[in-house]
Amino acid sequence: MQALPTYDDVAAAARRIEGHAHRTPVMSSATLTAETGAEFFFKCENFQRVGAFKFRGAFNALSRFDAKQKKAGVIAFSSGNHAQAIALSARLLGMPAAIVMPSDAPAGKLAATRGYGAEVVTYDRYGDDRDAIGKRLAEERGATLIPPYDHPDILAGQGTAAKELFEEVGPLDALFVCMGGGGLLSGCALAARALSPACQVFGVEPEAGNDGQQSFRAGHVIRIATPKTIADGAQTQAPGAITFAVIRKTVDDILTVSDAELVEGMRFFASRMKMVVEPTGCLGYAGARKIADQFRGGRIGVIISGGNVDLDRFCALTQGSV
Amino acid sequence: MQALPTYDDVAAAARRIEGHAHRTPVMSSATLTAETGAEFFFKCENFQRVGAFKFRGAFNALSRFDAKQKKAGVIAFSSGNHAQAIALSARLLGMPAAIVMPSDAPAGKLAATRGYGAEVVTYDRYGDDRDAIGKRLAEERGATLIPPYDHPDILAGQGTAAKELFEEVGPLDALFVCMGGGGLLSGCALAARALSPACQVFGVEPEAGNDGQQSFRAGHVIRIATPKTIADGAQTQAPGAITFAVIRKTVDDILTVSDAELVEGMRFFASRMKMVVEPTGCLGYAGARKIADQFRGGRIGVIISGGNVDLDRFCALTQGSV
Repeated sequence: MQALPTYDDVAAAARRIEGHAHRTPVMSSATLTAETGAEFFFKCENFQRVGAFKFRGAFNALSRFDAKQKKAGVIAFSSGNHAQAIALSARLLGMPAAIVMPSDAPAGKLAATRGYGAEVVTYDRYGDDRDAIGKRLAEERGATLIPPYDHPDILAGQGTAAKELFEEVGPLDALFVCMGGGGLLSGCALAARALSPACQVFGVEPEAGNDGQQSFRAGHVIRIATPKTIADGAQTQAPGAITFAVIRKTVDDILTVSDAELVEGMRFFASRMKMVVEPTGCLGYAGARKIADQFRGGRIGVIISGGNVDLDRFCALTQGSV
Repeated sequence: MQALPTYDDVAAAARRIEGHAHRTPVMSSATLTAETGAEFFFKCENFQRVGAFKFRGAFNALSRFDAKQKKAGVIAFSSGNHAQAIALSARLLGMPAAIVMPSDAPAGKLAATRGYGAEVVTYDRYGDDRDAIGKRLAEERGATLIPPYDHPDILAGQGTAAKELFEEVGPLDALFVCMGGGGLLSGCALAARALSPACQVFGVEPEAGNDGQQSFRAGHVIRIATPKTIADGAQTQAPGAITFAVIRKTVDDILTVSDAELVEGMRFFASRMKMVVEPTGCLGYAGARKIADQFRGGRIGVIISGGNVDLDRFCALTQGSV
């Protein structure tokens, strides 16, 4: 196995994405401080390009392509934020992108991905083998496949979110980061270890999909069935090999929260902080609320991962009709 | 009549509120630029303390109290953002505040105002004379009444929102500001005239409540019946005497938009920019969309005034159920 990514890779990613990714704002809430006795700092990646932190890793990975790779372009599988992040990054860097998406993906997502100039290759999710399609495409074209999280350049790019947070607010007592495949968590944990060594780092998963927590406690990757949760960005079956290896060395614990706690988070962000946050984006907040008592008088950082939730679904969830 | 406020008063207000008011972020939208051919800069006062720009003027006005005024405290009439802005500013500056609110105001607003430490004095909106109650209270206590917009320190404070915007993004071709009583518009127009002299400044009102537009075109204050509009922060019957005098000298035109256009704005902000904006807060955006064609290739500033809309109402409005 190649050497694991380090903070130096996060710092290098920060230089590559500068001027391309937004330096997103950090928000606080006096109400929340009054309620919990801890000061909260929210890093708002819902305001990032394409509406999620995924742009950081995608742009970093694609910036490292050599001339030959750039000419042949990039391939990604995703129906979510990673697809759009790859599509936009490819356009900005002037290379072709093909995104492999299920043919029954929401029309809006297909249109948005095409809107960024990417070619969309659809497959039948009940009949076709997605991996085989991607592999064949990559071989035919000589294109480079970029996975959504288990890649050193992806996780290094995602870590720039926490790097910016620490640079802006200084050392923290705890940092809460959502966990799907572990790209954001591992990158942010590398930044925490370097910039705020005493900071405790927590990953937060949906209760129904605690592959990360099980793996963390077992000390090796454990695979689960696709979980049923409203946190669609965290419906992973297992952490990545690289992300998990970094997480084991840098993270203090992995917590879980219920879907109801995520909905409470969506309501909190909308009512109190005037922000739209997708269910997955509320994981960090919900985890932090759970153990905020341990940090009374302290300073807590939370990464809000994204805001890509359809408005009708946002209202259905927060109004209790689903 | 005393001399009208000038940009110097805005600059002085900026020094007083520094470190107390948030320096709110400026957001852009690549989608909107692609759609309109103009670059948009949104000054996000929905992220201001108490969720609206009103904190700027209130804190500025109360900071200027002398020792005697401070001891006797402040009185305000309001069931909206001004009440909470006065209540919080009074607490931060260590003075008593009494807010005169209708007894049937939403329980949440009564509780929030009390939560900031203010005394709430209720009245029967169908029987009592609000002005008489306020006047009597002020006389009995020797307290100072601070109106929601028609006061030099209030409008100077509100102007700091545009001052920060110009400082951050440089000169603009057009600036769109919502108009209720005209406090925000007049203050922001003073900042525009000083910091970006060629910038055209537009006030934007609800169609149903175009007291500002009528007054602007007539050249004197015109009073209308209380308008029926979802823009509850712009349900004024007439601009203030001071704010109108400044607006006549500094504003290029006043536009109107429909409630349906405000709802489209709420959907745009939530879906595209991941922000919750109250109906009144969408006036500037809706006005800008209306005449954006005139500014193709140009740079447009918009002040988002606030985000204080109940989440249930937000969903009812954006889901078309009211």
